[in-house]
Amino acid sequence: MSTAPSYQDIVEASERIKGHAHKTPVLQSSYFNQLAGGDLYFKCENLQKVGAFKFRGAFNAISQLSRDDGKKGIITHSSGNHAQAVALASKMCGYKATIVMPENAPKVKVNAVRDYGAGIVFCENTIESRQETTEQIILETEATFIHPYNDPRVISGQGTCAKEFLEEVPDLDVIIAPVGGGGLISGTLIAAKSIKPNIKVLGAEPEFADDAYRSLKAGAIQPVLRTDTIADGLRTSLGTLTFEIIHQKIDDIITVSEDSVIRDMRRMWERMKIIIEPSSAVPISALLKEKINLKGKKTGIILTGGNVDVENLPWQSIGEN
Amino acid sequence: MSTAPSYQDIVEASERIKGHAHKTPVLQSSYFNQLAGGDLYFKCENLQKVGAFKFRGAFNAISQLSRDDGKKGIITHSSGNHAQAVALASKMCGYKATIVMPENAPKVKVNAVRDYGAGIVFCENTIESRQETTEQIILETEATFIHPYNDPRVISGQGTCAKEFLEEVPDLDVIIAPVGGGGLISGTLIAAKSIKPNIKVLGAEPEFADDAYRSLKAGAIQPVLRTDTIADGLRTSLGTLTFEIIHQKIDDIITVSEDSVIRDMRRMWERMKIIIEPSSAVPISALLKEKINLKGKKTGIILTGGNVDVENLPWQSIGEN
Repeated sequence: MSTAPSYQDIVEASERIKGHAHKTPVLQSSYFNQLAGGDLYFKCENLQKVGAFKFRGAFNAISQLSRDDGKKGIITHSSGNHAQAVALASKMCGYKATIVMPENAPKVKVNAVRDYGAGIVFCENTIESRQETTEQIILETEATFIHPYNDPRVISGQGTCAKEFLEEVPDLDVIIAPVGGGGLISGTLIAAKSIKPNIKVLGAEPEFADDAYRSLKAGAIQPVLRTDTIADGLRTSLGTLTFEIIHQKIDDIITVSEDSVIRDMRRMWERMKIIIEPSSAVPISALLKEKINLKGKKTGIILTGGNVDVENLPWQSIGEN
Repeated sequence: MSTAPSYQDIVEASERIKGHAHKTPVLQSSYFNQLAGGDLYFKCENLQKVGAFKFRGAFNAISQLSRDDGKKGIITHSSGNHAQAVALASKMCGYKATIVMPENAPKVKVNAVRDYGAGIVFCENTIESRQETTEQIILETEATFIHPYNDPRVISGQGTCAKEFLEEVPDLDVIIAPVGGGGLISGTLIAAKSIKPNIKVLGAEPEFADDAYRSLKAGAIQPVLRTDTIADGLRTSLGTLTFEIIHQKIDDIITVSEDSVIRDMRRMWERMKIIIEPSSAVPISALLKEKINLKGKKTGIILTGGNVDVENLPWQSIGEN
């Protein structure tokens, strides 16, 4: 289970998720084209099931379990989009999911997971407690653990997004996506470079969670050092498998300031009228920071998710204008 | 200029706006299907240029002016989406637009119009001052006035939305749209009933601006009685032309409570991850109120716009949960 998936795996994942995941729309905006000085295409995974690309990987992994394994249940630990993705994908496959969540997880996220019919087990808010709790349940139930990114089935699922994107806009010169644990960017790298070997694939990270940037420089996995980036989907460090793929294939990683992420998230809401979460704004900020490279080019941006607490928006807390 | 447009006018408008207006996506949501107990299709005019369907009508009207007339300028009075639509459509046609706005118009709306390159003339916040100011400018400049809805060219433009919708989802049984001045619903009635004579077309209004509902009942135009509905796009009364079309063709008008509009606007943000303004939630609330009629049916909803002040959201001011 620990070797990188091939493009063929992504093709098979595409077949597997067909009719279950949304084929998300690709949108354009003259406002952002003007800002960037190039042609931008936005692949709207915020409009994906559960509001995030994570559904692709979770469904691809869970739908290929044997019925016997599936009947023993699915388990993961996450308080983010992966939790909702595993919950819904399990439900759609007819399996019972258990999500291990820290006891201080936001109520809105707990409710979302519960709405998808998953059981929730709370643990202390430490990595140790999370792991112990998960392992204990696996011991008791033989449930299958679905890792949020360091799993070739999950990576293949995430890769279907770039495949779809290039089928709709074949002449993209560049694709850019945010980097958290690295599942999406890994799948994107494998898909995009197989379909179009000369395409550039860029990663984007917020400065407060620039572990992939530092890992690439160091040639070895470097952990995230702080957990307060506004881009809450990107607070995880790379895995062994995702690091290997990124290290081998990525063209560059661009880091951006927290302020620029909030600014561009808000611009997207106001100008494109779609709800994106902060993580989705990270690649936009990266492009606008390095826009000298965009002229005359077609650049694809993966908008990773749209799960936001609409009671508590980042520009309201900092009074930005 | 005061007879109802024909379906042929809408076909010609479609040709005229092609390549200038967005062909907006149609989205679906299993969450809302479940809530409604039927198949819902959302036509996303919130993702249209200027964030509202109004661009269709404005561009259709302005782009068919003679160059000589166009060069004398375009004028309208509006502090809403029509103002932005006229500003952008004029700019795209190479004409100068003047927008008459009340001096207390929200800054965010004034700036949006200015960003599209239009000149702004402020007037007092009364109907008289608005009309006098506009007429004075027309006298001086011979600019062409573009009415927000009571104009067959504008109605034809708005009708292109339903035409596109039925081309993408030909087996719709029902189309529902909100009713403000009546331009959109008039164009929708002409287009939809010409393409598919047995389709039902419903209007939706908030209780605080139920003038079309009352006008239908009375058989004559009844004015809006209060101006405080949360659905700020629907605060206008019908025009002579739109009343005539609606009176002749509409199947029904459903009115909904202000609270349900806020509730459904928020549900759309949270579940569909798209930004809609309160007016766009009105037909959703109407469907959910009368959902007994939706079972087994395909219903198309026109999401009219997405222009919202993201600093000031309705669920925050009323503390709804």
